[in-house]
Amino acid sequence: MSRFLSNRYSNIEPYTPGEQPKVYNLIKLNTNESPFPPSPKVIEALNKAETEKLNLYSDPDTKDVIDAIASTLNVKSENIIMGNGSDEILAFTFQAFCDSENQPCFADITYGFYKVFCELYGLSPEIIPLREDLSIAPEDYYNKGKSIFIANPNAPTGLALSLSQIEDIINHNKNSIILVDEAYVDFGAESAISLINKYDNLIVSRTFSKSRNLAGARLGFAVANAEIIADLAKMKFSFNPYNINRLSIIAGKEAILDTEYFEKCVSVIIKNREYTVNELKKRGFTTIDSKTNFIFTKLSSISGADYYKALREKNILVRHFGNERIKDYVRITIGSLEQMQALIDATDEILKGV
Amino acid sequence: MSRFLSNRYSNIEPYTPGEQPKVYNLIKLNTNESPFPPSPKVIEALNKAETEKLNLYSDPDTKDVIDAIASTLNVKSENIIMGNGSDEILAFTFQAFCDSENQPCFADITYGFYKVFCELYGLSPEIIPLREDLSIAPEDYYNKGKSIFIANPNAPTGLALSLSQIEDIINHNKNSIILVDEAYVDFGAESAISLINKYDNLIVSRTFSKSRNLAGARLGFAVANAEIIADLAKMKFSFNPYNINRLSIIAGKEAILDTEYFEKCVSVIIKNREYTVNELKKRGFTTIDSKTNFIFTKLSSISGADYYKALREKNILVRHFGNERIKDYVRITIGSLEQMQALIDATDEILKGV
Repeated sequence: MSRFLSNRYSNIEPYTPGEQPKVYNLIKLNTNESPFPPSPKVIEALNKAETEKLNLYSDPDTKDVIDAIASTLNVKSENIIMGNGSDEILAFTFQAFCDSENQPCFADITYGFYKVFCELYGLSPEIIPLREDLSIAPEDYYNKGKSIFIANPNAPTGLALSLSQIEDIINHNKNSIILVDEAYVDFGAESAISLINKYDNLIVSRTFSKSRNLAGARLGFAVANAEIIADLAKMKFSFNPYNINRLSIIAGKEAILDTEYFEKCVSVIIKNREYTVNELKKRGFTTIDSKTNFIFTKLSSISGADYYKALREKNILVRHFGNERIKDYVRITIGSLEQMQALIDATDEILKGV
Repeated sequence: MSRFLSNRYSNIEPYTPGEQPKVYNLIKLNTNESPFPPSPKVIEALNKAETEKLNLYSDPDTKDVIDAIASTLNVKSENIIMGNGSDEILAFTFQAFCDSENQPCFADITYGFYKVFCELYGLSPEIIPLREDLSIAPEDYYNKGKSIFIANPNAPTGLALSLSQIEDIINHNKNSIILVDEAYVDFGAESAISLINKYDNLIVSRTFSKSRNLAGARLGFAVANAEIIADLAKMKFSFNPYNINRLSIIAGKEAILDTEYFEKCVSVIIKNREYTVNELKKRGFTTIDSKTNFIFTKLSSISGADYYKALREKNILVRHFGNERIKDYVRITIGSLEQMQALIDATDEILKGV
C-alpha cells in the first residue's frame, strides 16, 4: 500500500477471480466459461473490415447490441443498459442505489463480489444466512427496507428460486431496489425479466459470459424500467461513457440474435450436467440441484480441499471455497462431454487412493 | 431520476462525449480519433483463431499487453496497469487517492471529465484558472497539499508544459499524488514516464485511443511506481477484475510493438497539423501552439459557435465548448490531409458569407 491510498481502502480485500493459469492441456472447469466457441455468426462478423475501424470510438449508447437484445428478450431498448461484463452492472447498482440510509442485503453464500462492492462503496451489508440445505428462504427477505441482491440461480450452489418466489420477495419490498442477478438463468431457471414493467424497483442483470459463449468479450447488461436504466446510465456516463469496445458490441449483437446456436449450446450443457451428476451419484457424491452451467458437489470420504487438489494434480482445475459452510464442496463447471468424462475418469483414479 | 437513486447523485451531471452521429460522408473531426486504421499487425492478430476463443475469460492481469508496453517504454511490468480506456485509469485514481482530507485540484480549462469524477466520488475540487493566454502556470501548483491532475498536453488547448516544468511541480508537492494525463503526449510533448521511479507520487496516464489508432478497443494505462500500481490494482480488482477483453489485449500488444507504424502515423498527423495551422493563419485564424492531434483555433470575424454550426452544415463535425473563457474557439481534430483540405475549403466558403 502506498502512503497515498485513501484511508477508506486501507483494509479493502479485492475480489479473487478464478485462476487463469497458462498450462498446456489443462481442463479448465473453474470459472464457468462455455466450452463452445461463440456463434459462427460472431466469428464471421468480427472481420477485417471491422477491425480496421478500431481507430474510431465505439458507440457510447451501444445501440446495435441493445436493439438486438430488446428484440430477442421482448423488451424495449430503453429498458436495457450494457456493462463491461455484468460485474460493471452490479458495481453501478451498488453505487447508485445503496448508501448509508439504504444499505444492501444478500445471502451469506452467494456471488463473492457483492461484499467486495460493499467495501468499495463503504457500505455495511446485512448478510442473510441460507437455510441449512443452502437454499434461499424468500420470507427472510420480506420487508427488509434495504436494497436486495439475489443471484438466481445462486452461485456457487446452483439452486434457483421460482419466478413466483422472486415475485413474492418483490411484493414484500415495494420501496426497495431488488437486483436479480441472472448470470446463469439460461441453464434451467425462470427469468424475472417479464416483471420489469410491473415493478419499478426490479433490476435484472445478465451476462454474455456463460450461455452466450462470450466471457472474453466482457459483456453484461441490466434490464429494468426506463427510470432505473436512466439512473444506471448516469453512473456509466460519469465513469466511462465508452465502456464497451467496438468489437464486443458487434459480437454481442450477433450472439444474441443467433437463437438457434444459443439453444443448441445450452441444451448440450444441460445434457452434460445430467451426465456428470449421474456419474458422480454412482460414486457416492451428493450434488445440489443445479440450474446453472456448474455443479456444487461433495463426497463424505474426501474433503473438498483434497478433491480439488487431487484433480489439480491431474490437470483438472475446479473451484474450492474456504468458507466454513461450503468447504466440503467443490464447484465444477460443466464443459464438453469429453471434459466431463475426463473428470469422471480422474475422480475414479482419485477415489481408488482414498 | 427514479425514486431509488442515492441522494448524493441527485444533481450529478455526467460527461457528454463528443457526438457520434451516424451520418453518411460526415468528416468527423470532433473526438480526436486517428484517421488511420490500426497497425496491420493488429488486424492480422485479430484473426479467426482468436475470435473463436472468446468463450474464455480474458487474463485479469493483462500480462501480454503490459509486458509489451514495458519493453517499449522501458519500464518494468510492475509499473503498469491497464484500464478500459484511460478514463477508467482516471476514475480509479480519483477514487483511490482523493477523499475529504485530500481533495483534488486541476485547471479551469482542461479535460472535462475531471470534474465529473469529482461529482461521482463526492469530492470538492479546487479549480485553478489558466493564465490569460490559456497556459498553465507551474507556480500555481506549488505546495497544494492536494492531489493534482494535469493534462499534458492540456485539452482542449493543446498546450504542453516541458518536462522540467512538470518536475518542478512534482518537486513542490512531494507528499501529494500528481497525475499527468498524457493522452496526447506522442504528438510533440515530453513524457514524464522517466520520472516514475524518481518520485513515488507520480502517475502518468496514457491511452491507445489517439497515437495508437485504437479508440474503439478501449485501452488506457497508468505508469507509476509499483506501490501506486498495486493500489490502483486494488480498485480494479474490487470493481471489475476482467476489465480488458481478450481482443483488446491482443490489439494493444501488437499496436505498441509496431513502433514503425506508430511513428509514421504520428509524423503524418504532425505534418497535417502544420498544414492546417498555416492555412488557417492565412485566413486570419489564431491557433494555440498545439502538441496534440487537434488544434484550438479562433477567428475574430466569426464566433466559435457560428463557425462550428457552419461547418456542421457542410458535413464537417468539430467541437465547440460553451465555457465563457473558450467560447470563441473551436477544437478541430487533425485528420488525413484530404480531410484537412476539405476543412479549409469549407472554411473558405463559410468566410465568403461572413
